[in-house]
Amino acid sequence: MNSDNFNLSEKIVSPSYIRQGSQARRGHEQLIRQLLEQGKCPEEGWSESTVELFLSELAVMDSNNFLGNCGVGEREGRVASSLVARRHYRLIHGIGRSGDIAAIQPKAAGSSLLNKLTNSVVLDVLKLAGVRSVASCFVVPMATGMSLTLCFLTLRHRRPKARYIIWPRIDQKSCFKSMITAGFEPVVVENVLEGDELRTDLEAVERKIEELGAENILCVHSTTSCFAPRVPDRLEELSSLCSKHDIPHIVNNAYGVQSSKCMHLIQQGARVGRIDAFVQSLDKNFMVPVGGAIIAGFDESFIQEISKMYPGRASASPSLDVLITLLTLGVCGYKKYLSERKEIYSFLAEQLKSLASAHGERLLHTPHNPISLAMSLDGLQANSDKAVTQLGSMLFTRQVSGAR
Amino acid sequence: MNSDNFNLSEKIVSPSYIRQGSQARRGHEQLIRQLLEQGKCPEEGWSESTVELFLSELAVMDSNNFLGNCGVGEREGRVASSLVARRHYRLIHGIGRSGDIAAIQPKAAGSSLLNKLTNSVVLDVLKLAGVRSVASCFVVPMATGMSLTLCFLTLRHRRPKARYIIWPRIDQKSCFKSMITAGFEPVVVENVLEGDELRTDLEAVERKIEELGAENILCVHSTTSCFAPRVPDRLEELSSLCSKHDIPHIVNNAYGVQSSKCMHLIQQGARVGRIDAFVQSLDKNFMVPVGGAIIAGFDESFIQEISKMYPGRASASPSLDVLITLLTLGVCGYKKYLSERKEIYSFLAEQLKSLASAHGERLLHTPHNPISLAMSLDGLQANSDKAVTQLGSMLFTRQVSGAR
Amino acid sequence: MNSDNFNLSEKIVSPSYIRQGSQARRGHEQLIRQLLEQGKCPEEGWSESTVELFLSELAVMDSNNFLGNCGVGEREGRVASSLVARRHYRLIHGIGRSGDIAAIQPKAAGSSLLNKLTNSVVLDVLKLAGVRSVASCFVVPMATGMSLTLCFLTLRHRRPKARYIIWPRIDQKSCFKSMITAGFEPVVVENVLEGDELRTDLEAVERKIEELGAENILCVHSTTSCFAPRVPDRLEELSSLCSKHDIPHIVNNAYGVQSSKCMHLIQQGARVGRIDAFVQSLDKNFMVPVGGAIIAGFDESFIQEISKMYPGRASASPSLDVLITLLTLGVCGYKKYLSERKEIYSFLAEQLKSLASAHGERLLHTPHNPISLAMSLDGLQANSDKAVTQLGSMLFTRQVSGAR
Amino acid sequence: MNSDNFNLSEKIVSPSYIRQGSQARRGHEQLIRQLLEQGKCPEEGWSESTVELFLSELAVMDSNNFLGNCGVGEREGRVASSLVARRHYRLIHGIGRSGDIAAIQPKAAGSSLLNKLTNSVVLDVLKLAGVRSVASCFVVPMATGMSLTLCFLTLRHRRPKARYIIWPRIDQKSCFKSMITAGFEPVVVENVLEGDELRTDLEAVERKIEELGAENILCVHSTTSCFAPRVPDRLEELSSLCSKHDIPHIVNNAYGVQSSKCMHLIQQGARVGRIDAFVQSLDKNFMVPVGGAIIAGFDESFIQEISKMYPGRASASPSLDVLITLLTLGVCGYKKYLSERKEIYSFLAEQLKSLASAHGERLLHTPHNPISLAMSLDGLQANSDKAVTQLGSMLFTRQVSGAR
Repeated sequence: MNSDNFNLSEKIVSPSYIRQGSQARRGHEQLIRQLLEQGKCPEEGWSESTVELFLSELAVMDSNNFLGNCGVGEREGRVASSLVARRHYRLIHGIGRSGDIAAIQPKAAGSSLLNKLTNSVVLDVLKLAGVRSVASCFVVPMATGMSLTLCFLTLRHRRPKARYIIWPRIDQKSCFKSMITAGFEPVVVENVLEGDELRTDLEAVERKIEELGAENILCVHSTTSCFAPRVPDRLEELSSLCSKHDIPHIVNNAYGVQSSKCMHLIQQGARVGRIDAFVQSLDKNFMVPVGGAIIAGFDESFIQEISKMYPGRASASPSLDVLITLLTLGVCGYKKYLSERKEIYSFLAEQLKSLASAHGERLLHTPHNPISLAMSLDGLQANSDKAVTQLGSMLFTRQVSGAR
Repeated sequence: MNSDNFNLSEKIVSPSYIRQGSQARRGHEQLIRQLLEQGKCPEEGWSESTVELFLSELAVMDSNNFLGNCGVGEREGRVASSLVARRHYRLIHGIGRSGDIAAIQPKAAGSSLLNKLTNSVVLDVLKLAGVRSVASCFVVPMATGMSLTLCFLTLRHRRPKARYIIWPRIDQKSCFKSMITAGFEPVVVENVLEGDELRTDLEAVERKIEELGAENILCVHSTTSCFAPRVPDRLEELSSLCSKHDIPHIVNNAYGVQSSKCMHLIQQGARVGRIDAFVQSLDKNFMVPVGGAIIAGFDESFIQEISKMYPGRASASPSLDVLITLLTLGVCGYKKYLSERKEIYSFLAEQLKSLASAHGERLLHTPHNPISLAMSLDGLQANSDKAVTQLGSMLFTRQVSGAR
Repeated sequence: MNSDNFNLSEKIVSPSYIRQGSQARRGHEQLIRQLLEQGKCPEEGWSESTVELFLSELAVMDSNNFLGNCGVGEREGRVASSLVARRHYRLIHGIGRSGDIAAIQPKAAGSSLLNKLTNSVVLDVLKLAGVRSVASCFVVPMATGMSLTLCFLTLRHRRPKARYIIWPRIDQKSCFKSMITAGFEPVVVENVLEGDELRTDLEAVERKIEELGAENILCVHSTTSCFAPRVPDRLEELSSLCSKHDIPHIVNNAYGVQSSKCMHLIQQGARVGRIDAFVQSLDKNFMVPVGGAIIAGFDESFIQEISKMYPGRASASPSLDVLITLLTLGVCGYKKYLSERKEIYSFLAEQLKSLASAHGERLLHTPHNPISLAMSLDGLQANSDKAVTQLGSMLFTRQVSGAR
Repeated sequence: MNSDNFNLSEKIVSPSYIRQGSQARRGHEQLIRQLLEQGKCPEEGWSESTVELFLSELAVMDSNNFLGNCGVGEREGRVASSLVARRHYRLIHGIGRSGDIAAIQPKAAGSSLLNKLTNSVVLDVLKLAGVRSVASCFVVPMATGMSLTLCFLTLRHRRPKARYIIWPRIDQKSCFKSMITAGFEPVVVENVLEGDELRTDLEAVERKIEELGAENILCVHSTTSCFAPRVPDRLEELSSLCSKHDIPHIVNNAYGVQSSKCMHLIQQGARVGRIDAFVQSLDKNFMVPVGGAIIAGFDESFIQEISKMYPGRASASPSLDVLITLLTLGVCGYKKYLSERKEIYSFLAEQLKSLASAHGERLLHTPHNPISLAMSLDGLQANSDKAVTQLGSMLFTRQVSGAR
């Protein structure tokens, strides 16, 4: 309420109580002010009431919520179902314009603010999580894989002759598909076994570069977060290689924001060599529903080039989810989750180790993988392959999911 | 958002769009301003977004939503469940104080505003519905019957010797019980048959007054809305009688707000004679959940006396429901419902008439009852009482409810 | 979904996944089953999804949500605003019938279940909180004070000649008013100072009984939870006195459920003497919005008599709030809150003690009051009364509320 | 609730009322059954309570809502914010798998059902809207432009040599960009003026095909919905041309579902020639928030090929929105909107015509454009270009949006 309305309220309810109420309102506004001023994730999480107040403020700035609005076009933010309107806090216009997913919409000042602030807050969190020199990022309502595709499609315009993408092997369908969909030929480089770990074969990568010719290579496509016994790629060395051969470097950091090691690798890679963009999943790193990713990089103009590749306006839903989540958690809350994850990981490692030894099996030694653990099942496998499948199904019916 | 925050927003999103957004916000604020200024039901209904914006503004003024609040008492608006908090729009403090259900709470400026505005808007609607000279009213989170009890308990303090309540018969348990619970002896006056209609026996009422002695009578307790073939009491004559004998007069107007005839009767009664309070149901007249009533009258000080009888703070839930409903409907929307009801009533009367004649039965002629219809079932009853019961159960299984 | 619909789903999505989904559904149903079977507060709290599933199941059983419903009466659960419908989970019919607030409604099987289960779960929690032999209780959507009034009004029918209520003094307006509103004359019995504590003057109470004559006394109205230096009444002795003189005994246990000592006092009082009913606030004990109370007792038929005194159907809102809260917390969650309160109380006592001594003041020694603390302000008061007021206002502006 | 729980409820509340409640539940289940059985948009819209019941049923089938779930992987549907969880009805897993956006997820039977049913219901509505022989479609959480890009990327695998896309000119940035992003060279074919209308220059298209060579052409990219004075492309003739030259044909039907003429053009084009896919916006045709599109076609295997191109799981948000909307509207409700749109269009045409003539201007005669209208502004333009801009800004400040 504005000051006029507070004054009127003082005539209805005692002035001193109203004044305290209006002061309390300023408390919420102060938080919003800091957000607008600094564009950073608040240190302490906001209460749900501040979050909802803020979202309702954004909504009234969008033209579909103007009281006398007369929309005659096809882009008017019409909503038929009130269930749908409410679940989106009446923010209907999505994000971006035809020309650029990061652009401002004339009809939707509120949604535009939402979009800008989300990208700004997310950038802040990426820095806090370890990639201190990241320059720019944006949330895109697409899967990590599809977002990688968008990066590759953007690079095509810079390297029209390139046909290949160098890709240290990682067994995940969507990574592979991201290159196929973009119309490139993945050049798979097998990893080498060092102890129990599967690590990047740097020599093989350099051999491939020389064999194919740098100008024919769109980029190197490396990976941080992955399943043991594979470990994160040697990002420093790969980045240096890319720098040396003048080849772009795109990093798939799918669920790596939650791991300080993965983030450190990216930071180091960018420092010593070349990383053009790194892409991460929203749901896996920020505990929001599936469907969004963050494309980030160290050169603002390249990130902007990617954002201009997306043709059309896009769903604001993933941006809204991550903004609500980060404002609610605050830096403290998010860091608490990160340290909890580390503790649980150590606990799991310990327990799996003793379980393994109790059954004559072995927890593989994969110290470079800060996220995933692998255990031998030789005994079972010796028995039969069926036994392994049975173990899987036993875990499934016991509602243990995520094991592979 | 305050002007500082709009200014900051202009640096993030184009100033002209933000300015339009901030102007749009003023549109909502203008509506709120009118409400605060006039305390009347808006002519046009508000959009849901204005309603929710307003409620969130009220909520931030309550101390349980203060950001740095440190509550050490037992009345701090604590809420354990976020589901519960959200369904009450975080307005937790209820209405009133220990001493008075209409009083302002120091800890809850927002809830206090809600309470005052609701009573003011409801008063406006009672006027529009026909009781133009009503002076004061308040919403109480109790059934109509319990609210009548509160009126009777208040009158006791004015008439300590009185033991009887004169009550033209109406077959509804809670009306009867409202007097019993208050500790009085209902003196039932049978109605007289005029044509098909059962109407107030004025002579019998006057006889009873003389017989018992006016000073021993707490009040006359009359009824407007009722089931045919009974028709609304002769309020004008009863009011004159009360005036003549200096006896209070309480009207049970349970579902009468929706009927211009019932409201006219009350207006006329108060004009020519005496009506101390009239009580109506929230749910039946305003299409909100069961649980609230409005106590209204023509003498502000007496209505205030009743409101001061309620010991403790009370639920704001019925007030919130009726405020949301009336703001959403507006005067136009509410009037539309009223006229629709009239049309449906006429249509039902017509159809029942031809149905009745098709079966050799008769729709009773009860022109003084503007709400309910009665039809003879002589044919069925001649057959057996069981047949009538069977008809009831057939209606029940066909999901026709409300027939008696 | 029923088994037919699960079978159909198997044709659309893989049968094994659907089967797991249907099994998961049974998990929720199992929890609901236990609730229906035992009528007790679950040991572990339910997830919000189970709670909402359950509420939506209840809602579809109410006639206003029947798909082909044709309601022609005045009690049809009509709702004009979808905001209102949703915030009540579409449970619109309230609780009770004209005759009895605990009765079942033919048109609202779901709301009736809600009402019965709430009362049953709350009874279970009262037992767990220490009044193990409580026999019956019900939630009433009225303030504690108004609920006490209802108890007094009920007693009037049992003791038509009684005019007085014996009341060991407690400085809270609504307690006093509860007796006035019911039409009785409170007979205030001053407390005696024992050490720092203000305790019940048992001899004075007995003197008053003898002076007025037991048959002229409606009841003794005692109090558990209160502000230091007053301490809870000597319930054992008062109960014995009531038993001896055959006088009803109503206990105001406003915010006493949270204190094992208060609950123990009631349990003991009922064991050695007579307690007819004890009344407690919903909001203060169960962290729900203001507006409800629990009337409980050791004789089922008397509690039923009170519930039959409420004329009309009542708001289900407080019942819904407390049911959601208790299902969400579970016994564990509720107990956790209770023990936290104790710890915070001890901490506060300790800190206040050292604060007091640092300023030459004294924390009063009131070991019988398990809830509230009092501190001397002699130094301030010596200065001026204004200084004390100033302290209050300093606390107010620092958002410390609840201090007196 | 299952039958066990209904039986238990009968012991708490009267069996006959519970039975009626359980019967009412079957009413909702019957609707869900029809949806599961037929996969079609219901004729009559569902009530919000049926919709929400259905969604909560879906949610409990997803593993993140399993009561004893122990997720150790990175794809577990974790949600940090309860605000976020609730706005997605706790459906967190998105749609599709790494390999295919239309695939079923083992961990999310409910979300998988949602995905399948949405696509099925949307297909039904496309048929009803006029493309009776459409064989397959899927909702994709991307803008229309990005969805067109996905179609082009899919075609690349079928036509590896092709570099050009033939594109009858349409002045909309995202259409142009959709081809650029996919890495192809748009070959713009200017339209011809016929009367006031700008129509497809078929001869020029054929000339271009012959000039470039069919095998070098990825596809023809045509448009239905557009701004007057341009009119929808001559789809029949273009489809025949594509068929004749064996060139794929992708139709941009952005906001054409709402127009029976546009849909008829597509149906006819597919009948007489070749249309490989047609793409339409969710928000513009179904009044949902921005962010989704429908990719549809006449050959199931090609549509599946496109759906397999999307790398990763995708947001379910647009699918959820359109499913809620279509279930709520039903076929009747949707058709009512369609006919209203036609009426408003005619009314607008009429009014603009008289406005134009009043100012010495002319409403252009564009009978082939069923959606948009154009009016001359010669008088203004004669004055100055600034005058035209001023008109635009006057419309803007009067909150008329959508005019160009």
